[in-house]
Amino acid sequence: MGRSPQQERPKARLPKGFRDVEAEEIQGVKEMLRVLERVYETYGFEPLETPFLEYTDALGKFLPDQDRPNEGVFSIKDEDNQWLSLRYDLTAPLARYVAEHYEGLAKPFRSYRSGWVFRNEKPGPGRFRQFMQFDADTVGTASPAADAEVCMMAADALEALGIERGSYVVKFNSRKILDGVQEQLKIPLEVRTIWLRALDKLDRLGPQAVKELLGKGRKDESGDFTKGAGLTDEQISESVSFAEGRTLKGHQIGFVGTPEIDEMRLLFDAAGYGEDRIRFDPSVVRGLDYYTGAVFEAELTFETMDEAGQQVRFGSVGGGGRYDDLVARFRGEAVPATGFSMGVSRLYAALKHLGRTQTQKTLPPVVVLVLDRQHMGIYQKFTNELRAAKIRAEMYLGTAGMKAQMKYADRRGAPLVVIQGTDERERKVVQIKDLAAGADMARQIDSREEWRAARAAQIEVPESELVAAVKAALEQRR
Amino acid sequence: MGRSPQQERPKARLPKGFRDVEAEEIQGVKEMLRVLERVYETYGFEPLETPFLEYTDALGKFLPDQDRPNEGVFSIKDEDNQWLSLRYDLTAPLARYVAEHYEGLAKPFRSYRSGWVFRNEKPGPGRFRQFMQFDADTVGTASPAADAEVCMMAADALEALGIERGSYVVKFNSRKILDGVQEQLKIPLEVRTIWLRALDKLDRLGPQAVKELLGKGRKDESGDFTKGAGLTDEQISESVSFAEGRTLKGHQIGFVGTPEIDEMRLLFDAAGYGEDRIRFDPSVVRGLDYYTGAVFEAELTFETMDEAGQQVRFGSVGGGGRYDDLVARFRGEAVPATGFSMGVSRLYAALKHLGRTQTQKTLPPVVVLVLDRQHMGIYQKFTNELRAAKIRAEMYLGTAGMKAQMKYADRRGAPLVVIQGTDERERKVVQIKDLAAGADMARQIDSREEWRAARAAQIEVPESELVAAVKAALEQRR
Repeated sequence: MGRSPQQERPKARLPKGFRDVEAEEIQGVKEMLRVLERVYETYGFEPLETPFLEYTDALGKFLPDQDRPNEGVFSIKDEDNQWLSLRYDLTAPLARYVAEHYEGLAKPFRSYRSGWVFRNEKPGPGRFRQFMQFDADTVGTASPAADAEVCMMAADALEALGIERGSYVVKFNSRKILDGVQEQLKIPLEVRTIWLRALDKLDRLGPQAVKELLGKGRKDESGDFTKGAGLTDEQISESVSFAEGRTLKGHQIGFVGTPEIDEMRLLFDAAGYGEDRIRFDPSVVRGLDYYTGAVFEAELTFETMDEAGQQVRFGSVGGGGRYDDLVARFRGEAVPATGFSMGVSRLYAALKHLGRTQTQKTLPPVVVLVLDRQHMGIYQKFTNELRAAKIRAEMYLGTAGMKAQMKYADRRGAPLVVIQGTDERERKVVQIKDLAAGADMARQIDSREEWRAARAAQIEVPESELVAAVKAALEQRR
Repeated sequence: MGRSPQQERPKARLPKGFRDVEAEEIQGVKEMLRVLERVYETYGFEPLETPFLEYTDALGKFLPDQDRPNEGVFSIKDEDNQWLSLRYDLTAPLARYVAEHYEGLAKPFRSYRSGWVFRNEKPGPGRFRQFMQFDADTVGTASPAADAEVCMMAADALEALGIERGSYVVKFNSRKILDGVQEQLKIPLEVRTIWLRALDKLDRLGPQAVKELLGKGRKDESGDFTKGAGLTDEQISESVSFAEGRTLKGHQIGFVGTPEIDEMRLLFDAAGYGEDRIRFDPSVVRGLDYYTGAVFEAELTFETMDEAGQQVRFGSVGGGGRYDDLVARFRGEAVPATGFSMGVSRLYAALKHLGRTQTQKTLPPVVVLVLDRQHMGIYQKFTNELRAAKIRAEMYLGTAGMKAQMKYADRRGAPLVVIQGTDERERKVVQIKDLAAGADMARQIDSREEWRAARAAQIEVPESELVAAVKAALEQRR
């Protein structure tokens, strides 16, 4: 990292797979998180945050892509020669927290958190190395009521965000049912993980790719090769058929489920969550290794355009499941736990698609032009008077002339500009120009008379009436 | 990172210098950031976020402790053999953003952001390796009005948080004045950085430590040695005397300032910011290398207890300055910029100290006890009815008996519990027990009669009136 005395100029560029987030998305996501938090708090969940770095051994290795060369996580060696990793999800750090503070917690312990997580994976369109999750977890109970609760909460959260009933479904299943399928199809234990991950990719990659992943392996568009599970043709076709929602050969009836599934169903019924909102679906898999029982997936069912311009279901925006062994890794004794994780960026994209982002759109600022730099003080005073009245306002800070300042105000989307030249200053008045009204009129102007009328979008008031006049002008524009 | 087949159990522990954040602080900080955002938006600043990892060369090396062995940052090599670093502040990534998008930005460009930053430094009491900053920056103008603006904004922000006028001061200075001092004292250019950093530590470490840092070097409490600047006794004493606010030997008058300082003063006057809020102070230094002109510091002036139990000023909660060369590193041409950074954790600690944290304290949930697990459905229904009415509610999810459930409700701080045993179920009624009222009364109970009266904190209502009765009971408790 040393630099020569003749320093080379660094290039201003984002690292591959990372991105900047600008005002509209920041505000939209913030509002979205606020809605989710409100729902989760109503369910009795409390906020809890863990740091971005954890000891690598504490996080464990449960990532779908851990078989890739860089193992899926960003890791750093600290000064004591211990490995630290950037968190790859919010569940593993929570398990560490719970194990560390177990005795002191009122159990069952419900908590929620949102935050950025990091994957050292190959980036692609819509796949970033830093993305945000929103998790809720209940630790310390094996009761299916805890699983049912997070599913109901996810459904409530989606509706609270403005996703209408019928446009989403929360599907649930149990890994135990998958165990049965695995046994029946004689899938070897040593490829179970590859098998689960491949089936989990059905929605995203389609059946052909999944068949390759279950067989000899698959080369993706970029030419990278992923080793397959090496299953037989019959195992492959039966697995894919099952994951597509069909029953296995020789089974006339559907899956009967397990006692846990039955108890969840009973609770959904009692609480009035019909199959249009939450339903059992034996094809739900989930890619993560640490699930031990119930698994869930929240899916948006409306159509959208994929990258290739095809109509497709919007698809998964979150999921989760029961992970009874994650805390036990630390403590030896079993600590049952379950949780639901929302993919914040996916969910935001969905809300945008539906026109449901609730940005309390911040009005752009009023711009106070600076026409006479010898009298900056008075422009500063105008600006601060506006701000003191809670009116968003800027004094122009550059050195450009009036025309460029007007252009700046226009680019900022300023509703009004405040103007005071020498003449106005001597008369102790200011001009207030309505940029939006001016622009609207300009668009409709056909004659010289109308042009003159449009100039009425500019008014003159005594300095002392500046704040009141700006307030009135802004009110009128609503 | 390989593990033997006989896996050892990992220890659940936080990495050194990191911490978990719990509900009260999360909510308090969130509310605090909301206030800051409101003030900054009134000033016309827009939110902008950059990722947590940047190319190391893009961040540059401007950290006060870059001379330590691990260079102060957490770095990772990516798969293309390029170094990435976790951001150590929010300014360097902003400079990268601006350089990358310069042509498309309306200038001067005002933006703000809050976020976690990371320092690979020695942790200590109150010094963490992950902490939060809140920054505002104006890029594209050399005008001292931009420097003045962020200082006024910082003052307004502190007052909006409830820190009263007189309890804080925003101090400003110019690195150009420090250049003059450096020249006069003949401080060699090659130790300028060490000299500035040492002077910046005066408040935190005291004059003796700073004198050692300016001389042969200093061994801290842990035994670690920091190399000194090797100055003469006269240079050292004059430097410290200056940083303590005294004029240099042979100067009868105070510092006259520079034209920039004069213009800032004029604007503060015009906008009505007196010396009780913002004032020139030639001893303000700031430790970061990248400042080129004005430097600022926000200080809280009230007394608090330090770690040794001594009364001390609360001290710095933020600062900043002009960094005209940071964007130029990428672009070659100069891009003037200035900014102010708040230390979020410091500021939150101050607000707590003042009793000014504005947690809209979330009421703990009502707990619905589960006395008959054969009838979970009905408890679930009660719980969901309460939630649907926006009442925070939990169904007890464990397997424990009634006494343990009451204890759980108590630990959760539940205001009320909802109880239905077999008898109540058959009569289609529920008991609502006011835990807080019960506890209050229990504390005052002297006789058997009073004890009986206290049991009135429990009421019975028909199932159909559950929501209304809980609502009424909660209203009454406000």
